[in-house]
Amino acid sequence: MVAGMTLTPWEVKGTIDYDKIVQEFGVEKIDSALLARLEKHAKKKGLVLHHLLRRHIFFAHRDLKFILDEYEKGNRFFLYTGRAPSGNTHLGHLVPWLFTKWLQDVFDVELWFQFPDEEKFLFKEELTLEETARYTEENMKDVIALGFDPKKTHFLVDTRHAGVMFPEAIKVAKRITFSTAKAAFGFSNEQNIGAIFYTAMQAVPAFLPSVLRKKPLPCLIPHAIDQDPHFRVSRDVIPRLGYPKPASIQCRFLPGLAGMEKDGKMSSTSGDQATIYTTDDAKAVKQKINKYAFSGGRETVEAHRRLGGNPDVDVSYQWLLFFEEDDAKLERIYRDYKSGKLLSGELKAILIEKLTAFLAKHQAARQRAQPEKFLWAPGKK
Amino acid sequence: MVAGMTLTPWEVKGTIDYDKIVQEFGVEKIDSALLARLEKHAKKKGLVLHHLLRRHIFFAHRDLKFILDEYEKGNRFFLYTGRAPSGNTHLGHLVPWLFTKWLQDVFDVELWFQFPDEEKFLFKEELTLEETARYTEENMKDVIALGFDPKKTHFLVDTRHAGVMFPEAIKVAKRITFSTAKAAFGFSNEQNIGAIFYTAMQAVPAFLPSVLRKKPLPCLIPHAIDQDPHFRVSRDVIPRLGYPKPASIQCRFLPGLAGMEKDGKMSSTSGDQATIYTTDDAKAVKQKINKYAFSGGRETVEAHRRLGGNPDVDVSYQWLLFFEEDDAKLERIYRDYKSGKLLSGELKAILIEKLTAFLAKHQAARQRAQPEKFLWAPGKK
Repeated sequence: MVAGMTLTPWEVKGTIDYDKIVQEFGVEKIDSALLARLEKHAKKKGLVLHHLLRRHIFFAHRDLKFILDEYEKGNRFFLYTGRAPSGNTHLGHLVPWLFTKWLQDVFDVELWFQFPDEEKFLFKEELTLEETARYTEENMKDVIALGFDPKKTHFLVDTRHAGVMFPEAIKVAKRITFSTAKAAFGFSNEQNIGAIFYTAMQAVPAFLPSVLRKKPLPCLIPHAIDQDPHFRVSRDVIPRLGYPKPASIQCRFLPGLAGMEKDGKMSSTSGDQATIYTTDDAKAVKQKINKYAFSGGRETVEAHRRLGGNPDVDVSYQWLLFFEEDDAKLERIYRDYKSGKLLSGELKAILIEKLTAFLAKHQAARQRAQPEKFLWAPGKK
Repeated sequence: MVAGMTLTPWEVKGTIDYDKIVQEFGVEKIDSALLARLEKHAKKKGLVLHHLLRRHIFFAHRDLKFILDEYEKGNRFFLYTGRAPSGNTHLGHLVPWLFTKWLQDVFDVELWFQFPDEEKFLFKEELTLEETARYTEENMKDVIALGFDPKKTHFLVDTRHAGVMFPEAIKVAKRITFSTAKAAFGFSNEQNIGAIFYTAMQAVPAFLPSVLRKKPLPCLIPHAIDQDPHFRVSRDVIPRLGYPKPASIQCRFLPGLAGMEKDGKMSSTSGDQATIYTTDDAKAVKQKINKYAFSGGRETVEAHRRLGGNPDVDVSYQWLLFFEEDDAKLERIYRDYKSGKLLSGELKAILIEKLTAFLAKHQAARQRAQPEKFLWAPGKK
């Protein structure tokens, strides 16, 4: 846990100081040399460096150099990320997945996607396994809608794949004491024993492909920074089981609509009205942004024209950093908003248009999604 | 944990005070009314009350009345017991299984037999899953050799059946805090998180048949008293999941060869030489008993003839309580030993003969054992 903010895999609250996280978690910032290497590989596939990298939204890593070294030696790695199904997918969830899709395209690698459906069941008193099963199905559609290659993408659902996962999880669990879990996750003695065990299940997909393919395969985990405590613990254990230490690459959170000061991470706990879900229609998106998106503008149009707005705290602008790929367009918006040429309502309209187009495409793809094609099975190649 | 003795599911040391256990664990002694009811059912199948009941070796229970009430109302219960595979089977392990076989015969009920192969892996630093897999196979043969009906007996192996067991275990685990586990099992914060979770897996077979058959089935668990902490915890949880609170019936330990003062429970940790395994040949049995079985006899033959021996501390006599079914024969041995008519060597010879005959039959049955016929599978009836 980081002093001065609430940041655990289960709760993120308040203003997030990313520099402090880098220091306290011990992750490394992604430097220009690494960006150049990533860009080189992207270009080979006719792609550009992902805007989430260009804008330092994916800002930190552990052992990314090792992954690129291995790749350049001809040793293919695999990707691992996941989603704990406890609600419908919102836009914040999509951020690491969009980037993961780019990584799959650039490196032509397998993705193992975990749905730890027991996790939130164990951490949320009121949540039932029936509910998590429904959310799993819904969340899967959102992952699939982003265009992952079904031949190279394997879904693991903890309760469904426990037959293969549990025997591996106990190997991890044997090497993690309650003291270690307590320090990493801030558990009290009143925590339930399932929640305490859970981190062992989250470790499994980071080496399961090595077990199944019977050879040590490097693993790269793209994830939001709040999940780092899990991987800090499992990075200690996995090499002791004879598998490569998993590497990781971390992103910031999509800020909540209420603004970064108040809500460092968009979360369904902010309430449905202030959260944009992937299934929201154009009308809902427009209403939510117009009503809830914190504005960096002035109190009156006149003052705004004269003094300009502040894009650095304006949530609509901040969201465009995540969703508008065109750097030139974004720079123009920044300049115009800061100078007062662009009004807050106009800026919101730009975001609304962007998201509406994105979601229309996403929702169409979601309709066509076939989760059964992605579920891992022993016979699946 | 009971003050003054070491008695946890993982360690039993020193003199066991069973009266103290009854009091501190809160189990009930099996009274004559219950014995009469059990005898009545046995007689209906042409059987007598089991000698382990007659001799109060199965001495305590929880809710056995409920099980008999249900049975007499026509509601069939099922049996659940198990073996954590961490070594070869010794005679002490057979005691609850022999009794379980009698229960299956008397009540014509299903037995669910758990092999929690992850348990000892998690609790013993040096034990590997390869070793527990081998012991599982060997231990199964010993269970089968006792004559259980394969149509009514289902083996559950935790790592093999995790697909069906883990999703149930998390429901139990959600309702057990670390504080509870700590109090029940004496865990420190340095205990590993797999061992902490384990009790949830041991709870599962007590209600899994209700899950699979989609109706609430009463469960009776015959077990050695050291396992009671697990079931004390799970008896609290299982009714909250909507299944009947499992009943249990507890036995004392077969004393170690070195005597009850020194070794309240025979255990492989006493060393292979002082432990009689089910695979020991006649020569080994003879050597071990003659060399290690603590004697209640006098220092010289002359003194023994004059003063008599003490069958109450003599391990050979104590073992006959477990293995000699004939009450009249046993009484004669008791009297003759106490009077000095029977010498210690002669008493040992009686035990050696009994065990040799038992093991010859057991080993022949072991050779024919087919574990795959007993493994539970979704299709198995």
